[in-house]
Amino acid sequence: MTYKKEQSFMPKPVRISLDAMGGDHGPSIVVPGAALLKEATELRHTDIAISMDEKPSQAIRMGRGKSSMWRAVQAVRDGEADAAVSAGNTGALMATAKVCLKTMAHIERPAIACMWPTMRGESIVLDVGATIGADAGHLVDMAIMGSAMARIVFDLERPTVGLLNVGTEEIKGIEAVKEAGRILKESNLPHLDYRGFVEGDDLGKGTVDVVVTEGFTGNIALKTAEGTAKQIAQYLRSAMSRTLMAKIGYLFAKQAFNALRDKMDPRKVNGGVFLGLEGVVVKSHGGTDDLGFASAIDVAYDMAHFELMNTIRTMLEHDPVGQTA
Amino acid sequence: MTYKKEQSFMPKPVRISLDAMGGDHGPSIVVPGAALLKEATELRHTDIAISMDEKPSQAIRMGRGKSSMWRAVQAVRDGEADAAVSAGNTGALMATAKVCLKTMAHIERPAIACMWPTMRGESIVLDVGATIGADAGHLVDMAIMGSAMARIVFDLERPTVGLLNVGTEEIKGIEAVKEAGRILKESNLPHLDYRGFVEGDDLGKGTVDVVVTEGFTGNIALKTAEGTAKQIAQYLRSAMSRTLMAKIGYLFAKQAFNALRDKMDPRKVNGGVFLGLEGVVVKSHGGTDDLGFASAIDVAYDMAHFELMNTIRTMLEHDPVGQTA
Repeated sequence: MTYKKEQSFMPKPVRISLDAMGGDHGPSIVVPGAALLKEATELRHTDIAISMDEKPSQAIRMGRGKSSMWRAVQAVRDGEADAAVSAGNTGALMATAKVCLKTMAHIERPAIACMWPTMRGESIVLDVGATIGADAGHLVDMAIMGSAMARIVFDLERPTVGLLNVGTEEIKGIEAVKEAGRILKESNLPHLDYRGFVEGDDLGKGTVDVVVTEGFTGNIALKTAEGTAKQIAQYLRSAMSRTLMAKIGYLFAKQAFNALRDKMDPRKVNGGVFLGLEGVVVKSHGGTDDLGFASAIDVAYDMAHFELMNTIRTMLEHDPVGQTA
Repeated sequence: MTYKKEQSFMPKPVRISLDAMGGDHGPSIVVPGAALLKEATELRHTDIAISMDEKPSQAIRMGRGKSSMWRAVQAVRDGEADAAVSAGNTGALMATAKVCLKTMAHIERPAIACMWPTMRGESIVLDVGATIGADAGHLVDMAIMGSAMARIVFDLERPTVGLLNVGTEEIKGIEAVKEAGRILKESNLPHLDYRGFVEGDDLGKGTVDVVVTEGFTGNIALKTAEGTAKQIAQYLRSAMSRTLMAKIGYLFAKQAFNALRDKMDPRKVNGGVFLGLEGVVVKSHGGTDDLGFASAIDVAYDMAHFELMNTIRTMLEHDPVGQTA
């Protein structure tokens, strides 16, 4: 499925390919999700859908050239679409994207970046699950790619960047994180304002625009925050229904509660951006609904429209690791 | 400072030594914190206090036999106290405890366990920052020590245990986590009900009684959850003060909001338990107040009273790693 969204100030429309079969709900959310935004669509039939528990290697073997996931990514490779969106399984989508699109020059490993709601607005956090483990060079690459995305999304000349660690003192933490910190500090890049180590609670505070970490920890931090938000929402619902006074209070404050629910709505920040590939691919939550899927399409639109890949390429020219390697 | 708390059903009182100089606020919170609980205290003068940014090695060099932290731990070693509590810096306290008390037989590395509030009550999560990195054997040891603590705290015959990972499918995750999973599954321990992998959002759900992870990830997950809770509390305050209707609603539901604040109060779950040492040591948050410090003393009381160390020793007799090594 390809859809076009045109804006008056932009001569060329952004074309986005959608994996209609991906996710827990497939076309039942992808089609209405696209309908929330679309101007024109074109359907392409596929016989193979990659299931949510498929191993990445099997997804490639079975799906190459044929699956709905592959075809969505292929449309980007072939220049028929400017970005692809899928709610399919993350491992399979990343493997498909790597094989079909290839990794960018000078980037060893792609990463997945997500928008993280904070007390100050939003930050970008990566990697939230593309790869387990990262050496100093990978972390520096992620800092650069994350900053490129922050330039686009937040319209900042020099986004602030922090490395996620267990303490702010320079004596602490994993060797790779410390080494990446040294490289970023010494290289003093023109488009990246390195601010040192940040801790888990800095994510919610929004201490920096971009938080960089390795994929295992990043994925667990993301899901822990999502889980904590759900937990507190449940506490709140339970507290507001326990007594008559609380119920009356809830009725008075209903609009405020609705605004709060809206602010905490995970569908609003749906869309993990794959960074470091020769093309834009966005991963939607597998279990989201049409509104959530539409958010992921919006993210893909922004990345394509504001030329994420060119921004990354420009910033990589100053890559301190690439230069010394 | 040593204090005794006597309960009618218990012939022998639990004696707890307190590091009065530890933490951001030192005696100004430790003394009133102890006063919330104490029956009798004895003060011991020390000239040296370990500062919050002291390196562990320096803390040992400077503090051996002399610092308030060392003296608190030493009282446990010498049998003058049944547990020690300090709000001092974690690294220094762990180093002091390791040197002064020694690590338990068959345990290579101590871990720090904390109580984690969940939708279902509470879980135990470890390691939240004692050591960076863990191999399969360390993870299995932690599963056993965490279960021993769960037996005591939750009064369970066979606590459920999960390994924190990035996916529930067995194909995913770090090799050490997968290997630990295989060992725990195959050994089918009598006092530990291994339930497989859990993800970040299972922490808040309370899917298992004990969640085991390596210290870097555990520390970041803990601080991320704390940060998210603060962030949502701020959203809520802001939503409830925005309109007149919301303010009225807040007044009606004030008791419910107070109950919620109480439930989310981090002081109530203050107290990281050091597991795997020849003595009970509890770490209080450095920035807590007297109520928070009193919670940490309460945790130390329970660990000493219900014989944490004997429980761990008994469970280690079935240690699948120890047996095969």
